[in-house]
Amino acid sequence: MEKLKKKIEAEGTCLGTDLIKVDAFLNHQIDPVLMEQIATTFYEQVKDLPITKIVTIESGGIAPAYALATKLRVPLLFMKKSEPNTMEDPLYTQVFSYTKQKAYTLCVERKYLSPHDKILFLDDFLANGEAFKGAERLILEAGGEIVGVAALIEKVFQAGHTYIVDKHYPLFSLAPIQQIENGKIQWADSLIF
Amino acid sequence: MEKLKKKIEAEGTCLGTDLIKVDAFLNHQIDPVLMEQIATTFYEQVKDLPITKIVTIESGGIAPAYALATKLRVPLLFMKKSEPNTMEDPLYTQVFSYTKQKAYTLCVERKYLSPHDKILFLDDFLANGEAFKGAERLILEAGGEIVGVAALIEKVFQAGHTYIVDKHYPLFSLAPIQQIENGKIQWADSLIF
Repeated sequence: MEKLKKKIEAEGTCLGTDLIKVDAFLNHQIDPVLMEQIATTFYEQVKDLPITKIVTIESGGIAPAYALATKLRVPLLFMKKSEPNTMEDPLYTQVFSYTKQKAYTLCVERKYLSPHDKILFLDDFLANGEAFKGAERLILEAGGEIVGVAALIEKVFQAGHTYIVDKHYPLFSLAPIQQIENGKIQWADSLIF
Repeated sequence: MEKLKKKIEAEGTCLGTDLIKVDAFLNHQIDPVLMEQIATTFYEQVKDLPITKIVTIESGGIAPAYALATKLRVPLLFMKKSEPNTMEDPLYTQVFSYTKQKAYTLCVERKYLSPHDKILFLDDFLANGEAFKGAERLILEAGGEIVGVAALIEKVFQAGHTYIVDKHYPLFSLAPIQQIENGKIQWADSLIF
């Protein structure tokens, strides 16, 4: 998606060879006009999948997942990064964040996932895939099926990409990064794998 | 807003006399059709205010704040409940959550708030007002101005309501609760204060 890539180039900040900050318009401050265009682009890519629910992880995934959920007219479920103390019947798992260099508990109320659910997982970033793998464990434990994985920004050179492709999940990413070198992003060619 | 009240009565769960769970449709799983109607209702109430930015707090406020931001065509800023380690020039403050009975650090990048900003603060719940007061401290420290406060669900009998009214902030709440008794909600009369 050219417009997202241009925005990242103009307003994102590369930190070293594997981190990129997009908090000016995606995951702290949000540009709602750009986000609507992101959701429209995803909608065109996934509208023929048999999606019954979108699952994301707080907080960066909520706005794009909500924007797409309004177009698909399916519920959105955001998994929480917290101890499941206040939940009735939680599913939970440990996830290691390479970005923050620490683990957190990912949790969800079991009743909001069912064996009938066909799920599109959507997040702002796909990097090492640890967050996705955590969500996948909880979805599969509930008997749900993952019918696609979507990311606004994907670091193709990290492990998440290969993990998802090897599992034959359809993968949709709008701004796939091949490499970051000297503060400059080299985009990967393909948008849909 | 009758539709929101009916949904709370049908699918919410009252816990004791002051807690209500709405994670089936508002702040864990989200019903996007209802959320769009919520945003449309807020839009009609606040569209004539000189709002330049919507501020909310992760995670429950993000979806409604985003939905309203798309209608007002202003940026959305969500404050984070975390240590500001990865921020460049953070503003932060301690907030005590009565619901969770513990304090957290509320933080925001200073550059996303400016003395020119006229801010609508929006959150899913207004209860004791501690979260709002924390956000208010950060907004005022940056020199911004609060032109309105919006909450989907308000517990009128707790301290946040009086605090906001006493400060003469326009207050917009869609489902104001007067009292919870024996698991039944008594709604307050007024919608806009």
